[in-house]
Amino acid sequence: MNCGMIAQSIGLLLYIEAACMIPSFAVAMIYGGGDARAFLFSILSVSAAAFAARLVKPARKDIYAKDGYAIVGLGWLLASAFGALPFIVSGAIPHPADAFFESVSGFTTTGATILRDIESLSAGILFWRSFTHWVGGMGVLVLMLAILPSAGAKAFLIMRAETTGPSADKFVPKVGSAAKILYGIYALITLAQAVLLCLGGMTVYDSLVHTFGTVGTGGFSDKNTSVAAFGSVYIEMVIAVFMMLSGVNFTLYYSLLRRDWKSVLHDEELRFYCALIFAAALGVTLNTYMGGVYKSIVEAARYASFQVISIITTTGFSTADFNVWPSASQFVLLILMLVGASAGSTGGGMKCVRIILLAKIARREFLRLIHPNSVSVVKLNGKTVESETLAGVLIFFFLYIAALVAATVLISLDGSDLVTSATSVLSCVGNVGPGLGVVGPAGSFAGFSPLCKLALSLCMVAGRLEIYPVMLLCVPEFWRRGNH
Amino acid sequence: MNCGMIAQSIGLLLYIEAACMIPSFAVAMIYGGGDARAFLFSILSVSAAAFAARLVKPARKDIYAKDGYAIVGLGWLLASAFGALPFIVSGAIPHPADAFFESVSGFTTTGATILRDIESLSAGILFWRSFTHWVGGMGVLVLMLAILPSAGAKAFLIMRAETTGPSADKFVPKVGSAAKILYGIYALITLAQAVLLCLGGMTVYDSLVHTFGTVGTGGFSDKNTSVAAFGSVYIEMVIAVFMMLSGVNFTLYYSLLRRDWKSVLHDEELRFYCALIFAAALGVTLNTYMGGVYKSIVEAARYASFQVISIITTTGFSTADFNVWPSASQFVLLILMLVGASAGSTGGGMKCVRIILLAKIARREFLRLIHPNSVSVVKLNGKTVESETLAGVLIFFFLYIAALVAATVLISLDGSDLVTSATSVLSCVGNVGPGLGVVGPAGSFAGFSPLCKLALSLCMVAGRLEIYPVMLLCVPEFWRRGNH
Repeated sequence: MNCGMIAQSIGLLLYIEAACMIPSFAVAMIYGGGDARAFLFSILSVSAAAFAARLVKPARKDIYAKDGYAIVGLGWLLASAFGALPFIVSGAIPHPADAFFESVSGFTTTGATILRDIESLSAGILFWRSFTHWVGGMGVLVLMLAILPSAGAKAFLIMRAETTGPSADKFVPKVGSAAKILYGIYALITLAQAVLLCLGGMTVYDSLVHTFGTVGTGGFSDKNTSVAAFGSVYIEMVIAVFMMLSGVNFTLYYSLLRRDWKSVLHDEELRFYCALIFAAALGVTLNTYMGGVYKSIVEAARYASFQVISIITTTGFSTADFNVWPSASQFVLLILMLVGASAGSTGGGMKCVRIILLAKIARREFLRLIHPNSVSVVKLNGKTVESETLAGVLIFFFLYIAALVAATVLISLDGSDLVTSATSVLSCVGNVGPGLGVVGPAGSFAGFSPLCKLALSLCMVAGRLEIYPVMLLCVPEFWRRGNH
Repeated sequence: MNCGMIAQSIGLLLYIEAACMIPSFAVAMIYGGGDARAFLFSILSVSAAAFAARLVKPARKDIYAKDGYAIVGLGWLLASAFGALPFIVSGAIPHPADAFFESVSGFTTTGATILRDIESLSAGILFWRSFTHWVGGMGVLVLMLAILPSAGAKAFLIMRAETTGPSADKFVPKVGSAAKILYGIYALITLAQAVLLCLGGMTVYDSLVHTFGTVGTGGFSDKNTSVAAFGSVYIEMVIAVFMMLSGVNFTLYYSLLRRDWKSVLHDEELRFYCALIFAAALGVTLNTYMGGVYKSIVEAARYASFQVISIITTTGFSTADFNVWPSASQFVLLILMLVGASAGSTGGGMKCVRIILLAKIARREFLRLIHPNSVSVVKLNGKTVESETLAGVLIFFFLYIAALVAATVLISLDGSDLVTSATSVLSCVGNVGPGLGVVGPAGSFAGFSPLCKLALSLCMVAGRLEIYPVMLLCVPEFWRRGNH
């Protein structure tokens, strides 16, 4: 383990976090209130911690996979811990476990909240809360990659642990410049959505808050009733479209920039993602309409499609309380939480591409049973997928389910009912936000014990980093000296 | 597809089923009532069907894997359909969907019931209902193997589809005689339990009914309150011990007969199975005691351990209504439903050995991430497990979860709540019996629509045959001509 390099990286990360607090500080200044002081204190504290971390000089410059995992795992946890400072210092969220939960939920772009009355918080604090989505969205570490001049090959190790899904390879040649391009696309989408929301009558402040929540697929709103508060079909449509865009593999935008239409149109994950959204929205529309939840099919379609998109992209904005929907619709949403968005997007969950590969593996297995002597390979976008990758996907599936099951038992010890325990974990690991039962779209995570909130925070980080880095941090072997 | 051989096998199977109805016919004669006529009619009908099936002469004698899957899949469905005849004809369970459900539940050794008042049924019918557990327990097809003189290599194909878990290989050399040994062990255990239960004050009839339910890990009782009706610690202990014995890989008893103590003591699955029972019983005892469900820790231990054993062996007998237990205990039971008993036992679920292999695969993956250049193999009982087997286990895990999820959405369309829909499917696929919510130990499956009952029946058969044969029957490719 190269502790020096880990400290250096985390120090840099914390400097970036301090810088990220400046816009919120500015908002707090503009809107008045005592929060500006809390931000100033936080910025100085984070900077001091960053300075201290950077004092550790690395003995050697080489980093290995396990260092990368440590940087990513510890980095997210520490960034979240320091990101909780403004909440605590300002008194907005006095309990450390609550503040940490809210900060983790922000940085992991989950959007689960322990707040019962969001609107009682000041503008500066709510801005910071949503801004963590934006920062987390593309990954603080991808940001770091884009800035870090000495990235090169080393950076790929972090990238592999960081970027979601099996498609990071496309970026291998020039990970630094690729990160910059991603960052540019991300900024462009952000700008476009903010402008469109303003055109719909939102204030600049509200539009920024909801844009951060959308493009980061986070889901924090500054309204108690989330997007439903605006009651505007236009705003819902803009947010829905941008949620969908944020759930797409960002490398496809890169392909679009290179006018490579073909690879976009024929991308299997994109097709699956769109087909799944369409099928789920149709199913939920019919089920809620026939279940008598909505009076007209148009109304049902409006709420169903928004909610389906919000959940599959793991954003978590809500315009309807799906806690009162028929159970079949609820199950569809739970499945979407499990599936999640595309790999290489800001969304969470298991990622569509993995589900596609799992289905193809299952299909190959069936064919093999019917024709024992047949040999067939699994292809994705016309290319043969290596058997090692396929095994990796299968193992990931098991670990994901195992993590869900283990965490659910832990959470249920707190005394929550079955549905609340299971869906809170599913939602947190999938970085969605709301669940069902007490943690439904109209509810909050406030009722959990502090220990549970910490466990759920760990679930969010584990889900955001695709299980491995966080699970590895829990393996004693990982910390043993002399290995790499 | 060799339809002739399939028809021959199914014909033989139905002849055996007709013979299996004779004891129930005798019981009906002894206890009186009009049911004897229902059994006589059923025996004649099944025999006629068997005769008709045997009229189809096979063009060739060779059977392939897919023929084996067809025999097993169709065989269980048809045997269950004909097994429902006594229920319908006697008027005990007039609706065909209900009768089919109850029959499938019996033959698959699930023990889920659509009856609300079990005790209102006649002795003959209840005897048949429980006897299906005993017949199903070791597998009607293993029975057939033991009797069929021309078994040989062909039989292995059926065996592979039939016997639970990856350990059938041990029997490859002489599958016919091995089946006879298994059958002998099974009969011995049955006799021992029946005698012990009689010594505890049970009537011969009750002891037989509960023995059938135990050794087949089925769980049908002739009492409305299941085993709780006897209120006897001795009876509970006898049943608990025999449930545990029935959840053990029967090849280990074969090893015991050969005085091969070492392979029994060092069997990893047996150790895991015992450790899991101990850990789960301890956890549930503490959780229910501290949750205030029971007044003393001894009382908690009594009910917790019985229920844990009943669920992990997928029997489903109950002495306590775990519907009112704290949610953590309920989750533990749900996990046990998923895990299930040992491979090669009469129990259902995913089987302990698969969970062991999955955990070992995950561990290897972690080590590989920490030491990228390390090479390590997965071993079971000291022997290296082939990577093909490991891939098979991973794929099975995915298919099992996928089947659960898909079936749950289907069932929830009926309007049941989340917990009822999800646990009824989990319980049926795992061949357990009771679930939570409406289908809890004090409830029944009566409230589902006929279509749901058929879907759940299919779930039971799918679970019993370890997913593949039933899933294959649904693949169009399977039915295409000219393949093998």
